[in-house]
Amino acid sequence: MTSISHAERRLIMLEEPILAINFKAYYPYSFGRKALELARAAEKAARETGVSIILIPPYTELRTISESIELPVFAQHVDPVEPGAHTGWIPLEAVLEAGAIGVLLNHSEHRLKLADLSHLLEKARAKGLHTLVCSDTPRTSAAAAALKPDLLAIEPPELIGTGIPVSRAKPEVITETLSEVHKINPQLPVLAGAGITSGEDVAAAIRLGAKGVLVASAIVKAKDSYEKIVEMASAMQPKQ
Amino acid sequence: MTSISHAERRLIMLEEPILAINFKAYYPYSFGRKALELARAAEKAARETGVSIILIPPYTELRTISESIELPVFAQHVDPVEPGAHTGWIPLEAVLEAGAIGVLLNHSEHRLKLADLSHLLEKARAKGLHTLVCSDTPRTSAAAAALKPDLLAIEPPELIGTGIPVSRAKPEVITETLSEVHKINPQLPVLAGAGITSGEDVAAAIRLGAKGVLVASAIVKAKDSYEKIVEMASAMQPKQ
Amino acid sequence: MTSISHAERRLIMLEEPILAINFKAYYPYSFGRKALELARAAEKAARETGVSIILIPPYTELRTISESIELPVFAQHVDPVEPGAHTGWIPLEAVLEAGAIGVLLNHSEHRLKLADLSHLLEKARAKGLHTLVCSDTPRTSAAAAALKPDLLAIEPPELIGTGIPVSRAKPEVITETLSEVHKINPQLPVLAGAGITSGEDVAAAIRLGAKGVLVASAIVKAKDSYEKIVEMASAMQPKQ
Amino acid sequence: MTSISHAERRLIMLEEPILAINFKAYYPYSFGRKALELARAAEKAARETGVSIILIPPYTELRTISESIELPVFAQHVDPVEPGAHTGWIPLEAVLEAGAIGVLLNHSEHRLKLADLSHLLEKARAKGLHTLVCSDTPRTSAAAAALKPDLLAIEPPELIGTGIPVSRAKPEVITETLSEVHKINPQLPVLAGAGITSGEDVAAAIRLGAKGVLVASAIVKAKDSYEKIVEMASAMQPKQ
Repeated sequence: MTSISHAERRLIMLEEPILAINFKAYYPYSFGRKALELARAAEKAARETGVSIILIPPYTELRTISESIELPVFAQHVDPVEPGAHTGWIPLEAVLEAGAIGVLLNHSEHRLKLADLSHLLEKARAKGLHTLVCSDTPRTSAAAAALKPDLLAIEPPELIGTGIPVSRAKPEVITETLSEVHKINPQLPVLAGAGITSGEDVAAAIRLGAKGVLVASAIVKAKDSYEKIVEMASAMQPKQ
Repeated sequence: MTSISHAERRLIMLEEPILAINFKAYYPYSFGRKALELARAAEKAARETGVSIILIPPYTELRTISESIELPVFAQHVDPVEPGAHTGWIPLEAVLEAGAIGVLLNHSEHRLKLADLSHLLEKARAKGLHTLVCSDTPRTSAAAAALKPDLLAIEPPELIGTGIPVSRAKPEVITETLSEVHKINPQLPVLAGAGITSGEDVAAAIRLGAKGVLVASAIVKAKDSYEKIVEMASAMQPKQ
Repeated sequence: MTSISHAERRLIMLEEPILAINFKAYYPYSFGRKALELARAAEKAARETGVSIILIPPYTELRTISESIELPVFAQHVDPVEPGAHTGWIPLEAVLEAGAIGVLLNHSEHRLKLADLSHLLEKARAKGLHTLVCSDTPRTSAAAAALKPDLLAIEPPELIGTGIPVSRAKPEVITETLSEVHKINPQLPVLAGAGITSGEDVAAAIRLGAKGVLVASAIVKAKDSYEKIVEMASAMQPKQ
Repeated sequence: MTSISHAERRLIMLEEPILAINFKAYYPYSFGRKALELARAAEKAARETGVSIILIPPYTELRTISESIELPVFAQHVDPVEPGAHTGWIPLEAVLEAGAIGVLLNHSEHRLKLADLSHLLEKARAKGLHTLVCSDTPRTSAAAAALKPDLLAIEPPELIGTGIPVSRAKPEVITETLSEVHKINPQLPVLAGAGITSGEDVAAAIRLGAKGVLVASAIVKAKDSYEKIVEMASAMQPKQ
């Protein structure tokens, strides 16, 4: 992504609907050559469908993917530390240097303390990094909304990785989240996550008011990731 | 506190203004005989001034103090676990059994993950425990307010234990917190904490709109804890 | 346990074989009246069988049990902090004040960092608290032995709470642990834990060279805890 | 480092003495272009002095440095998780994929639980990754030695970053560590760390029996990192 500026990437990214792909730490899918292939598949699908796709690879893949692929790249997390003597910790500056233009925070597999989440969101804003915050219930979503992230993803943890889609098994979690969140932060786009494995699940989420989806294993571990991404992106019916 | 019921203690407690005493883990002050003496001093001061005093001793002192003293007793924390195979962890049920009628959560020395804080607040409500949540900035206070605790205490961590009172050094932290919190949760009583060492500091907090204070070392390590409590309680000008 | 001194309790305790009862945090078994009943049952069984029984209740029950029962009481854990501004954390001094004469450290449900474990063991020695350290494999047992605890308990975590006794399902874990540990620390008594539910399981552990057992749910949640304790204690064939 | 195999890198690396450079997370020194410059300076110094130099950059720099520089590269840490659904965590497989041939574990800024440290060391061995374990005292060093790492570094945390060299301020920490470690694991090479800022400090460590040093800020934040590396490497008097 050497040919376009950060400012341009921001423009691409914030066009809804959004398909955010969390690579997690699957082996071998999330690392090395496999991760790059997945990123290329997403790039191709983004071009063809016009949907905004965010790539969220592990720390170790951030630079290679952000330098090779013309899609916005987010880190999966950053640690609540300032640069300095912090062996094995990743301050926000590290992912910025590696080419990330945003960061996922508070994923159910990497929850943050409230005070740290708040501090990291302020720091990300100050440094020009986009933020996507995960939450687990309508109420924590409301609390997260008060912290003013750029994007929120509601993911009931009990459905993550199950193939039981939140958008169909628990539609009320999405609608209540939208209702609670928008009382506090009316413009905040909300993505749906957890158990989403098909275009139908995506379409259901969009119909409920979600501005996109956060997906992991259904794409990352798919037999054909490119086809799965196209299936999901197409279900968002973007204004091309 | 064997002679009055939980319901009665609730009534006592929620009368504002409130002086909440966090015993922390000072040695020897916070433990054993010393802790009981401190609790007795608070009981005497509460009777004389009419101010509601909440005692917040370590886990190991909860039962003795709640059985011996006629004041509401809160735990300093509870762990985000359900009862079961959790060696060395304290579920909410443990402090309830030991006589606590409330719990302090998210103190700056014991921050909780947003999801855990939200879950513990729901559980405390369901089990009839009062909740006092600490926060560090106006923004995290707003987020905490969305989680509907019974009481909130704003404590800028950089002032805790310094003797520099938030109510005088950073009055805007209190007023902004009140403003942000009440947009989301208009009835939530806000206490002020951090650096409060005198009746004047307390009075300043009350004038700014705080419904009380959360104090630790200034009382716990005072030469004469009773006098210090009376000084602070008197500065709240309660409706006796 | 007001009538005998700490020194006397030590003597009682270090007589092998040892039956250590970890109350964990079961509800209602581990708390309040139920916890005290369990402790009394253990006291009676200890008198009748002559076996040394160590009680390991939650923090909130330490004082009541150590004041009411004539058996050695250990804490389930202590936090690696010095006394001071540590809201909701329990320094070693807290459990000492509450009547504990020892502490369980590094249970599989509450693992410690190597440096903290080492530091806490030194501190416990300096303060006169007995120590019982848990470990999960022969190799970590060897490492733990280098830190010179008073007692070690080998507990393969995958068997904890299963009812599949380490002493019968994985006897080689016990014998290899004894072999590795005694190369480094020849006098260290090793207890066996995990999945032990009957006198037969206890007897098997003793035959393999264990100096006792660490038991939780099989006793704590037993229909008749007293009978279960007697069954296990009797299986140790103490030199009365 | 595309031209030589992992097996060859191992040979280079295990030749003592060793200068291990922990990049930590200093900004801008530890990241991006600056990190690569530092790595190149080390490469040049290694060629000129014949000393084995290990580079230990942040996760985000692992691949670039291991692909560009002909020196062994270690990760600063790996998380105790298996590959899978672990957003923002780095399993050992991730750093292996990124070109690391070893891993630093249990640094004082990133301590591990004893059981996790033991498990990660076994896993590293099984996967062919070298291991360098940090410890803080002679006793924890003995415990760590029982876990059979490839290299050990003794670093009294109170000296890290101070410029007060362990080798001169606390020589007995090094000699006692050697003595304790070699009782348990006679062949284990021990490096010295903490406060080392000059060739003299390095020479003092070598004279005490250390097989090398672990250095961070003194090199990473040096005005001229190349000169500092040469100064330290030269002080090791390698058998060229």
